[in-house]
Amino acid sequence: MFTWPARVYYENTDAGGVVYHAEYLKFMERARTEWLRAFGFEQTSLLRERNLLFAVANMEIAFLASARLDDLLNVSVILEETKRVSLTLTQTITRNDPGGQVTPLIRARVRIAMLSRDFKPVRIPADLLNRLQPLLDGQPWIIKH
Amino acid sequence: MFTWPARVYYENTDAGGVVYHAEYLKFMERARTEWLRAFGFEQTSLLRERNLLFAVANMEIAFLASARLDDLLNVSVILEETKRVSLTLTQTITRNDPGGQVTPLIRARVRIAMLSRDFKPVRIPADLLNRLQPLLDGQPWIIKH
Amino acid sequence: MFTWPARVYYENTDAGGVVYHAEYLKFMERARTEWLRAFGFEQTSLLRERNLLFAVANMEIAFLASARLDDLLNVSVILEETKRVSLTLTQTITRNDPGGQVTPLIRARVRIAMLSRDFKPVRIPADLLNRLQPLLDGQPWIIKH
Amino acid sequence: MFTWPARVYYENTDAGGVVYHAEYLKFMERARTEWLRAFGFEQTSLLRERNLLFAVANMEIAFLASARLDDLLNVSVILEETKRVSLTLTQTITRNDPGGQVTPLIRARVRIAMLSRDFKPVRIPADLLNRLQPLLDGQPWIIKH
Repeated sequence: MFTWPARVYYENTDAGGVVYHAEYLKFMERARTEWLRAFGFEQTSLLRERNLLFAVANMEIAFLASARLDDLLNVSVILEETKRVSLTLTQTITRNDPGGQVTPLIRARVRIAMLSRDFKPVRIPADLLNRLQPLLDGQPWIIKH
Repeated sequence: MFTWPARVYYENTDAGGVVYHAEYLKFMERARTEWLRAFGFEQTSLLRERNLLFAVANMEIAFLASARLDDLLNVSVILEETKRVSLTLTQTITRNDPGGQVTPLIRARVRIAMLSRDFKPVRIPADLLNRLQPLLDGQPWIIKH
Repeated sequence: MFTWPARVYYENTDAGGVVYHAEYLKFMERARTEWLRAFGFEQTSLLRERNLLFAVANMEIAFLASARLDDLLNVSVILEETKRVSLTLTQTITRNDPGGQVTPLIRARVRIAMLSRDFKPVRIPADLLNRLQPLLDGQPWIIKH
Repeated sequence: MFTWPARVYYENTDAGGVVYHAEYLKFMERARTEWLRAFGFEQTSLLRERNLLFAVANMEIAFLASARLDDLLNVSVILEETKRVSLTLTQTITRNDPGGQVTPLIRARVRIAMLSRDFKPVRIPADLLNRLQPLLDGQPWIIKH
């Protein structure tokens, strides 16, 4: 499981006193970006050198509890399935509360599709798929950051 | 069916040249707000006078096609189901293309829960439910804006 | 004076209970976009057909009072000066309060520069300058929207 | 000089291919938040325990060059002046380019005012002022993060 931290700033909150719901999608996209970067795939390079980009095709999101200003969150990425033109990921956002309790805030299932620069679905490059495949086989895999 | 327009500005786009995926959630929230306002329920008054607010509890979103800078979008709200503490809505975002074609961009199912100010689920007030009930009965209902 | 309305939604607010300061810049950019569109200059067309875009070069902003959820704001654009490669605008954001009082929230001076697609300063096209020039001469000018 | 890093994600960019101008204000606010946190002053605690918050009162921003997707930026905070109810800061955003060159992107002067929860100006607490005063005296001051 890959995790990436996200701090809640004023920019992420709303007048309800908690994080605005669409901001969690930004946190999840940051984690997906860093997950790909950890494999050596920068989205900038994908776009510039290969005319490829990932776009979200489907999302199911359960908003379980609310984050607040100054909270430090953990955003996870787990690869569930690879297809020719898309990846399906499970993502969670949790908060470490005092007393060691981990509070789940978001549980999401995200399908991201590989697109050409003109937004047509295209095959995921073999070198990327080869790099991701071991994750599905349940092999231990840890990235330090 | 209630619809609300949304213009795409630079603030909504990203370096892929299209609308950033989380921005569609803002468009849908604007439409839900105006839908409630059309019934006489301002979220500000709900919060200040009754200590109540709606929060998104679940979302399923299909991203079908991409909006671009300067596009004028139509965001719809259809009530699917009322429960004691939540409403389930179907929302779509479409674009009127040249030639009269309507392009679907987003199709979403959104469950919003009624919460107290301290984020506990509470019953939806009877006057609001009474106002919404006719929508489920398929009665004609039009709001001009 | 050109004005454009902006409604405050949850997306614009923060945990302080008011509009997040950077959101006012979005409101001002929307008004500049609609001001240009009112002259027949869509930013999409400028970019696609002429490889030109406006970018903010300098801003001075005074945050005078705070807008809140559901407020309906008026965002103005006044042309102060034209140069070969930039325009200087005065922009204000106000709110009509009960009793007919107009509360100023934002007063800003914004210099926007004409750039090529690779972000080099270039001359503002003559047809655009010709269209803007009368505004400086204090001629009456009204756009309905 | 205090600096805080900021990574550019898709959320920060726009269809021009660069960072949307209002996003730089978010980066600067994150750095101010971390600067205060480094002194032991969390904004959440200020609000909850003392009913105090900082709000931006004035900003002058020069947009010197554009950041792009995946750029890693450095956001600085330098205290210029303390008054009874406000602080004036200089903030810059820079990028370390290949070859060791540091490219300045943003130079800003920001005055933040101390407000009560109902948005009236109030004195900055003595313990906070005492903590900030040495910065003005040019004493060496380093925070590791």
